[in-house]
Amino acid sequence: MTWKITNQSLDNHQLLVDESLFSLANGYLGVRGNFEEGYSDKMASIRGAYINAFHDETEITYGEKLHAFPETQQKILNIIDSQTVLLYLDGERFSLFSGEILSYERNLHMDKGYGERIIHWKSPNGKEVVLHFRRLVSFVTKELFAIDLEVKPVTPVEKIEIVSIVEGDVSNFVDKSDPRVASDHAKRLFVSEVYEHEHYHILKATTYSSKFDVACVTTTNVDQNYSYKSTVKKTSTEEVYEVSGDSSFRFTKLNIYTDTMRHGDNVVEQGIKIHKEIKKETFEDLLKKQENYLTDYWKKADIVIDGDNKIQQGIRFNLFHLLQAAGKDEFSNIPAKGLSGEGYEGHYFWDTEIYMNPVFLMTNPELARSLLLYRYSILDYARQRAKEMGHAKGALFPWRTISGTECSAFFPAGTAQYHISADIAYGFIQYYLVTGDGEFLKQYMAEVLFETARLWIEVGHMYQGEFRIDNVTGPDEYTCIVNNNYYTNAMAKHNLLWAEKAYHILKETDPVRLTELTESIHLTAEEVRQWKVAGMAMYLPFDQELRINAQDDSFLRKARWDFEKSDEGKGALLVRYHPLTLYRYQVCKQADTVLAHFLLEGEEDLETIRRSYDYYEEITTHDSSLSYCIFSIMASKLGYSEKAYQYFIETARLDLDNTHSNTKDGLHMANMGGTWLAIVFGFAGLRIAEEGITLRPSLPKQWRSLQFSLSYRGRLVRVQLEKDQVTYSLTEGDILSITHCGEKQELHPNQDLVIPN
Amino acid sequence: MTWKITNQSLDNHQLLVDESLFSLANGYLGVRGNFEEGYSDKMASIRGAYINAFHDETEITYGEKLHAFPETQQKILNIIDSQTVLLYLDGERFSLFSGEILSYERNLHMDKGYGERIIHWKSPNGKEVVLHFRRLVSFVTKELFAIDLEVKPVTPVEKIEIVSIVEGDVSNFVDKSDPRVASDHAKRLFVSEVYEHEHYHILKATTYSSKFDVACVTTTNVDQNYSYKSTVKKTSTEEVYEVSGDSSFRFTKLNIYTDTMRHGDNVVEQGIKIHKEIKKETFEDLLKKQENYLTDYWKKADIVIDGDNKIQQGIRFNLFHLLQAAGKDEFSNIPAKGLSGEGYEGHYFWDTEIYMNPVFLMTNPELARSLLLYRYSILDYARQRAKEMGHAKGALFPWRTISGTECSAFFPAGTAQYHISADIAYGFIQYYLVTGDGEFLKQYMAEVLFETARLWIEVGHMYQGEFRIDNVTGPDEYTCIVNNNYYTNAMAKHNLLWAEKAYHILKETDPVRLTELTESIHLTAEEVRQWKVAGMAMYLPFDQELRINAQDDSFLRKARWDFEKSDEGKGALLVRYHPLTLYRYQVCKQADTVLAHFLLEGEEDLETIRRSYDYYEEITTHDSSLSYCIFSIMASKLGYSEKAYQYFIETARLDLDNTHSNTKDGLHMANMGGTWLAIVFGFAGLRIAEEGITLRPSLPKQWRSLQFSLSYRGRLVRVQLEKDQVTYSLTEGDILSITHCGEKQELHPNQDLVIPN
Repeated sequence: MTWKITNQSLDNHQLLVDESLFSLANGYLGVRGNFEEGYSDKMASIRGAYINAFHDETEITYGEKLHAFPETQQKILNIIDSQTVLLYLDGERFSLFSGEILSYERNLHMDKGYGERIIHWKSPNGKEVVLHFRRLVSFVTKELFAIDLEVKPVTPVEKIEIVSIVEGDVSNFVDKSDPRVASDHAKRLFVSEVYEHEHYHILKATTYSSKFDVACVTTTNVDQNYSYKSTVKKTSTEEVYEVSGDSSFRFTKLNIYTDTMRHGDNVVEQGIKIHKEIKKETFEDLLKKQENYLTDYWKKADIVIDGDNKIQQGIRFNLFHLLQAAGKDEFSNIPAKGLSGEGYEGHYFWDTEIYMNPVFLMTNPELARSLLLYRYSILDYARQRAKEMGHAKGALFPWRTISGTECSAFFPAGTAQYHISADIAYGFIQYYLVTGDGEFLKQYMAEVLFETARLWIEVGHMYQGEFRIDNVTGPDEYTCIVNNNYYTNAMAKHNLLWAEKAYHILKETDPVRLTELTESIHLTAEEVRQWKVAGMAMYLPFDQELRINAQDDSFLRKARWDFEKSDEGKGALLVRYHPLTLYRYQVCKQADTVLAHFLLEGEEDLETIRRSYDYYEEITTHDSSLSYCIFSIMASKLGYSEKAYQYFIETARLDLDNTHSNTKDGLHMANMGGTWLAIVFGFAGLRIAEEGITLRPSLPKQWRSLQFSLSYRGRLVRVQLEKDQVTYSLTEGDILSITHCGEKQELHPNQDLVIPN
Repeated sequence: MTWKITNQSLDNHQLLVDESLFSLANGYLGVRGNFEEGYSDKMASIRGAYINAFHDETEITYGEKLHAFPETQQKILNIIDSQTVLLYLDGERFSLFSGEILSYERNLHMDKGYGERIIHWKSPNGKEVVLHFRRLVSFVTKELFAIDLEVKPVTPVEKIEIVSIVEGDVSNFVDKSDPRVASDHAKRLFVSEVYEHEHYHILKATTYSSKFDVACVTTTNVDQNYSYKSTVKKTSTEEVYEVSGDSSFRFTKLNIYTDTMRHGDNVVEQGIKIHKEIKKETFEDLLKKQENYLTDYWKKADIVIDGDNKIQQGIRFNLFHLLQAAGKDEFSNIPAKGLSGEGYEGHYFWDTEIYMNPVFLMTNPELARSLLLYRYSILDYARQRAKEMGHAKGALFPWRTISGTECSAFFPAGTAQYHISADIAYGFIQYYLVTGDGEFLKQYMAEVLFETARLWIEVGHMYQGEFRIDNVTGPDEYTCIVNNNYYTNAMAKHNLLWAEKAYHILKETDPVRLTELTESIHLTAEEVRQWKVAGMAMYLPFDQELRINAQDDSFLRKARWDFEKSDEGKGALLVRYHPLTLYRYQVCKQADTVLAHFLLEGEEDLETIRRSYDYYEEITTHDSSLSYCIFSIMASKLGYSEKAYQYFIETARLDLDNTHSNTKDGLHMANMGGTWLAIVFGFAGLRIAEEGITLRPSLPKQWRSLQFSLSYRGRLVRVQLEKDQVTYSLTEGDILSITHCGEKQELHPNQDLVIPN
């Protein structure tokens, strides 16, 4: 069961959750796990399909708009719905909410990359049929969403009708009461073309404002004799197959989705072209290719746990959805909810660099590179945004965006999170450390580091010999607009010093490129000197009495939140208290200083890190799904094994068990990345440094063994933790030095290194 | 000329400004100074009439809405337009933008309370006429807006037509680019009835959401033979008088405006009733009554300056408009722009208590009382708002409102300005100190002080023996959401200690009332003790090095704003920089700590106040019109006479000279109050204390003399400053002790006290 997710629920509340859990995607196209035939009337559903980065621009309305507030934002759009397949048995419409279900099983196959439902249904009039729905969103042909339905009559049925619909009149989901979901602009896409051409059913839709096109070109087939009728309606196409109920048959529906960004202006023609390319492939062929792709992924990414099947299942679920969510071209990144729902409107946040990209970096570095190149592609927007904010130089990356402009409509917990620029710089540096890719440094990383370093010089200032950064917001959104947020300052320091370092690396390795770059961005040597000075002089708040790092200058002087009083209510504090009231207290939504201690552990001694952890743990609500994994990692580091495990458990099945109660809006992708981090950076103690990688493994006592792989500088290293020993196997690449529990070790090809505990 | 404002401009830009400058109002009804006949086509105009507090509820849209953000706000509405009077000379339409103007004069008579235009006009066909428009908004019959037009043909004219229109199809002004002006909801009033009844022309309009009615009942008259036609249209009424051009004649138009709040459901009937009450009065009678009212006002409020006519005119202009702006019933207060324009949407702010009410308190205490009772009337809303914000007890007054609920859509510079609750408490205390009105304390003030004191206990907390208030915004909106804003903490201290004092006064003077009150609001003696403890322990930031009061905990550690760099642009920083960027610097929009030093000068020694003034002066932009007057007052106190005068000059004619470039949106009422404060609290050094009033006069060297009056505890005291002496005259009331330059003096009726300098 650890390779599949299984479920028989027909409860509406759970079905909404399942729409996210059973969603299928490939980083380009995503389809929620809706039922082909729908639910019964009046049941809620967020029926959706999305293309990563396919969006419309919408106006942001403010009660009071101040200078440089973003005027528009982007919104991922629910696109043409090709999921619908209806079935009639002698005129009786199939539904799981009528008749009798003799057996029902729903599976998500994570090893093979498809979803299925196997249903033995008895109609109200007593006719029985076994249905086998399978669907996939192809990793090989990214435009393809395929449905296959096998129909096996069990009792005599005279006539079976299959009605296949493609509907263009779709809307986005809105909820005015939840700030994490869109509150407006439900309808931003209109059907611009609908017609039949040869055997293709074609729908084209266009966004209201940005005028992007999306096309869905559909073919269907039945492998039996049938009579057939098709109708082109105003916003949809409908095909009806009438088949004899004598024997089993299969219905297949192939939908090719193309968009302007990736396919240019002729989206329909391109869709037809792709259809032609795959026309010889059966559904089984498609499945096979999908499985091959996933086999390759799992070879590098899988984590094997012996001792807890539920956790094993949870981890595979998270890694499967991470792969599904990650944009694999220059136009896209990883939306906060992947392509599984509409929460956060398809926007990309710091989640990518801090929570998700490390997974790819250590398992599929090419994917990590692609995600970073997306950031490089929006560097000009970031430069422009810095100017809008009043800075003379530098790049300020948007807190949330699709196409590169700032989409945050609430700056205290949006634009004020300047740390995102340092987070992105951190992501580039990590990539460089893991791959050692000098070309990457020259072509992309140096420029990103230079421009972000410039930002910190603009934002901060020297005061009594220290470099201070005022009025920003750290990761913890329960305390906004503060001075000298520890996380921000530490990350900015890292950014500044690495920018200076990158400058000198470039100077040594490619002075021509350096000259070209410095000229193009008008960079002076004096600026580079300033980076070093500012970085070295960076002020990192430390409380002499508590001997911990203060989250910011004033945090520790505030009143502590009264948890007893507030726990009377339910749910995250942010939906129960005005932000100003939260800001007034020592209460954290998520790891902030503790996160800095993970990302930059060299900044503080272990006991400071420990005291800080102990202190912040008591006042952290984990109302953000980005919190548990960091606490788990740091608990591992500090030897708090039981805590590490407990926090880890919270991450491993957060969506599967819907512990945050909003999985219906999409999966918590960053948390999914966090699960992997908690294992590899937490239990296995991986750290990445200039000198190489180090591990300090510690197997949770609940498990018999843990096995995972690491990609590092062209090698693939398999690591196996057992109760009494750790085994390192170099399965690809040349000899490699690593540090294990503080000691240098050499790994040799095809030669296991076994180290007893 | 010091009693009138005169102008001949026909420049569109200045005409927009003049619409505000020449506006007429009485605190209930306001009419902008538009031309009866309009401008020429394509010229911009904000044609408007308003009833104080007559508003609609509108939804606030947020890009991202968090908990307890206000969902609706109120918006004062432009109401039925009764200004229009058109004139045709043998078919040629009169306009100041056609034909030839042989002479033109426009006056606002501040001593008599009316506006006029006297025009000698030659039509394109060469027909000449002298027109004399007069208009008033009556202080005696508050519903009345009257227009009188005298027409004198100069050359032969055969036929003169007067077309009088009342139009209900009106909208509000919107400007998306200026946060100080509404950006949406232009149309919120629809015509619900329009008809003729007897000789009344009746228009009733209803608000979209709140369903308030406003009626305008109009009668017109011509004092010559005429033929007459009237038409009732869909949203307007039109009357046409045709008069022979043989001789002069007069046209009079009386418009009575009634509304649901003041006149109940039968607004039309009430309007007709009021018409009947005044039907015997000629326009001259109305003018006479208006003049009588103003004579009485000026007797108490006038300030006479010998030595500068422009300033003299400016002060009278300001005092005239203050009277026009002040709501005189329990439903209304003083909108930030009075009734002269739509800026800030007719909302009431702290401006009333801190800048405007002191003028009335010292000249017309009954008016001051009425303004405070409005605050008392919204106390329940303030209690409710405190709960919404997460406070268990207390009252949080709205930062901006009409009917009592919070209308601020940007909390960092809105709701976060908790100081407004202390400001209102301060207003109540000042009223009590000036009037000694024990009944007022019992009935209103004690409850307001108790509930606001409770708020501070909720918001602040003890830390290392000091009472601290985190995450609020002080008056200076260029630094929002700070800890221990000096102004807020000092005002909260005053609020807390006075609440405790009021409790004991009530205990002594009326224990029955105290019991009734404490029971009704569930107040415990322990809470009262807490007020004293918190007040005494209040932390007031002081920088040991600079030896000044820090604006807040972190202000003095921030970078100083680079004025040279930013001055390249133009206009207030708030329309050129993102708020976050401004927050990051030592730069002030307006007096903050300096204002606290004015209101609560006993908190610090003179040299701390001086050093603070010197420090903050250098970094204050005065982008708020509430700033100059405070700097003038404090410059006076500190003996910076020339500065005091220069700052004062900026206040005296701010609107007359449109120095803030937005007078078109309405007059800066708080600044107008500030002019008076700068003279009486500044030059004359008035202070109000429990022990009585003190003065420390210092005549600006630019003037020969300065004279003003003070109402204090039933007395009227005239004060005359001359170069070599000060004269106090007790013109009303019994013997009074005052303090002059630190020495006790007794004033006796009808006996001037002359003190040489």
